[in-house]
Amino acid sequence: MRIAVDAMGGDNAPEEIVAGALLARNELGYDITLVGDEQRMRELLPSDTDIEIRHATEIIHMDEAPAVAVRRKKDASIVVATKLVKDGYAEAIVSAGSTGAQMTAALFDLGRIKGIKRPAISTLFPTAKGPKVLLDSGANADSKPENLVQFAHMGCIYAEKVLGMENPTVGLLNIGSEEGKGNELTVETYQLLKNESLNFIGNVEPRDITIGNVDVMVCDGFVGNIVLKLAEGLGTFLMNAIKDQLTSTYRYKIGAAMVAPGIRNIKKLMDYSEYGGAPLLGVDGVSIISHGSSDAKAIKNAIKAAGVCVNNGFVASTKSRLRGEDK
Amino acid sequence: MRIAVDAMGGDNAPEEIVAGALLARNELGYDITLVGDEQRMRELLPSDTDIEIRHATEIIHMDEAPAVAVRRKKDASIVVATKLVKDGYAEAIVSAGSTGAQMTAALFDLGRIKGIKRPAISTLFPTAKGPKVLLDSGANADSKPENLVQFAHMGCIYAEKVLGMENPTVGLLNIGSEEGKGNELTVETYQLLKNESLNFIGNVEPRDITIGNVDVMVCDGFVGNIVLKLAEGLGTFLMNAIKDQLTSTYRYKIGAAMVAPGIRNIKKLMDYSEYGGAPLLGVDGVSIISHGSSDAKAIKNAIKAAGVCVNNGFVASTKSRLRGEDK
Repeated sequence: MRIAVDAMGGDNAPEEIVAGALLARNELGYDITLVGDEQRMRELLPSDTDIEIRHATEIIHMDEAPAVAVRRKKDASIVVATKLVKDGYAEAIVSAGSTGAQMTAALFDLGRIKGIKRPAISTLFPTAKGPKVLLDSGANADSKPENLVQFAHMGCIYAEKVLGMENPTVGLLNIGSEEGKGNELTVETYQLLKNESLNFIGNVEPRDITIGNVDVMVCDGFVGNIVLKLAEGLGTFLMNAIKDQLTSTYRYKIGAAMVAPGIRNIKKLMDYSEYGGAPLLGVDGVSIISHGSSDAKAIKNAIKAAGVCVNNGFVASTKSRLRGEDK
Repeated sequence: MRIAVDAMGGDNAPEEIVAGALLARNELGYDITLVGDEQRMRELLPSDTDIEIRHATEIIHMDEAPAVAVRRKKDASIVVATKLVKDGYAEAIVSAGSTGAQMTAALFDLGRIKGIKRPAISTLFPTAKGPKVLLDSGANADSKPENLVQFAHMGCIYAEKVLGMENPTVGLLNIGSEEGKGNELTVETYQLLKNESLNFIGNVEPRDITIGNVDVMVCDGFVGNIVLKLAEGLGTFLMNAIKDQLTSTYRYKIGAAMVAPGIRNIKKLMDYSEYGGAPLLGVDGVSIISHGSSDAKAIKNAIKAAGVCVNNGFVASTKSRLRGEDK
C-alpha cells in the first residue's frame, strides 16, 4: 500500500511531517510518497531512506480561499498529492494543511461519491469515554436536514469501519434533549433521523460531547466548527491557567513538580495527536485530515488511519450503504 | 429599591436563594421580597428579618415547556415575582430558575421594548481578560440578521450601563476571521453590522471567546446556547479530570494539597457565581437571570446586578438608543 503525504501542510511542516512519515515507514511498513519541496525533504530524510519524494513547487496556506487556491496552484503539494490517488499511484493521501484546500482538491480530483449531496469533515473528539465522532465539523456552513441525515450515515460507517465501533449510537447535537427542541434545522432533522436505520438516540447536548455517551454526534458544519474551535480554545486556556497558577509561588512549584505527570495525563486526554486523522467523508477516495498542529506522532497515526480506511474498504462501504446494499 | 426574588428557582432553591437574599439585604441594603413557599422560607429566615415573603404555591421546573407552564401556573413563583415588577411594587426581579419561563413571564407581563423584534439572553462569559458578554445565549433558536444587529446594540448597552465598559468592542462569532466567512446568517449580518454606529471589530472566532479580546460577542441563540453549555461541560470535564488524576496516587495527593489553592483559583476563574446575573435584554423591565447552579453568593451578586440596572436606567437607555436619541 502506498500513502501520499503532503509534506508542506500544517504548523510544523515539513519537519514533523517528514519525521512522521519516517515513523510510519518503520512501524507500519507502508510505502510512502512525500510531496513537497524536494530539497528541504532531502535535508530531513536519511540518505538511505526508501521513502519516495515527489517535488511540488507550491504551498496552499491556511488563509487562502481554498477554491481559488486549488484552481490556481496546480503544483501545490496538496493538489499533487491528491492527484497521486486519483491516478491510482497511491491509495490514500494524508495532510495536516488547509482542510478547505484538502476538501476542494478531493472534490476536484477524487469526486463525490454518487448520491452524496454534501461531503463532510469528521473530527475525533476527546471525551471521558475515549474519542467520539463529531460531524460535520466544518465542510458545510449551511446544511439542510437531508444533509445531516447523510452525515449521520457517513459518521456511522467511519465509526464502524475505521474505529471498530459496533452499532454506534447517533445523536443530534442540540440545545435541549427533548424531541421538538432546537432550531428549524434540528427539529426537522430529528424527524428524519427517527425513521432511518440508525441507532439514533435522539438529541444530545454539548455536555454529552465531553461525557462521551454518544458515538456519532451530528450537526451542521457551522456549529461543528464552533464546537471544535471552542473546545481547543478552552483546553488551551485552561492548561495555560493551570501553568500560570502552579508556577506562581515557590510552594506551588514544588507541588506542581510532584503532580506534573498527572497534569500531563490530562493534557494527553485532550491531545488530538493521539487520534491521528479523520477521513473526508463522501469523497471517492481516502483523504485523511490530520490536525494542523500535528507532530510526528500525529502524522504517523494519520497514516495509520489511512491504512485502516484502505484495508477496511471504507469508501466501498460508504457506496454500498448508500445503495442500500449494506445495513 | 425593592427587588423581587424567585425563591424556588435553581438547583439550590430555596436554601441558597434565601441565604443570598439575606446576604444582599445585609450588604446592599435593598428591600427584598422573596416569592415562593412561605413555610419553607420561614424555616430558613431568622425570625427578626425584615425580608418580605410573598407566598406562591407553584413552581415551574426546568423540563417544562415555558409557554405552557407560564400560562397554566398562574401562581408559580417566577410568574408572581414578575408580576410584582409589572405592578410597580418591585423594581426588578431575580431568578435562578428556568430561563425560558423567566423570559416568557417577562414577555407576558413586562412586555417587549417597542422596536425590539426579539429579546435576547446575554451571558457573562469567563475569559482571560475578565467577564465578557455573549448573546444571544438561548432566547432565539432561529434568528435573522436584523435580530443579530439588535442583539449587538443591546449587548453594548448592557456592557456600558451595567458592566461599566467604555465604547465596548463588538464581534460577530464566526468560523473564520475574514469578511465573507461563515454561513448565510453571519455573512449577511457582517454587512449590516459594518454600517451600524457600533465599535464593530469584525468576525471573532471561538478561541477569541476564551482569550477575551472582544467585549460583546454576537451570535444566534442556537450557537450561543451550544457555546455556553459546551464551555460549562468542558470546564466540569477538565476539573473532574484534574481531581481524578491528582488523587490517584499518594505522591500526587501530597503535591495536590500543596497546589490546591491554585487549582481553586482556576475553578474560580470559570465560576459564574462571581459574576452574578445578566439581565434579559429587550424586555420592558429589569429581569435578572442567575445561573441555575447559583449559590448564596451568586444570588447576592445577581441582586446587586439588578440594583445596578435599576440605578443606571438600563431599560430607559435601551429605549432611547433604539429611538436614536442616544449615541
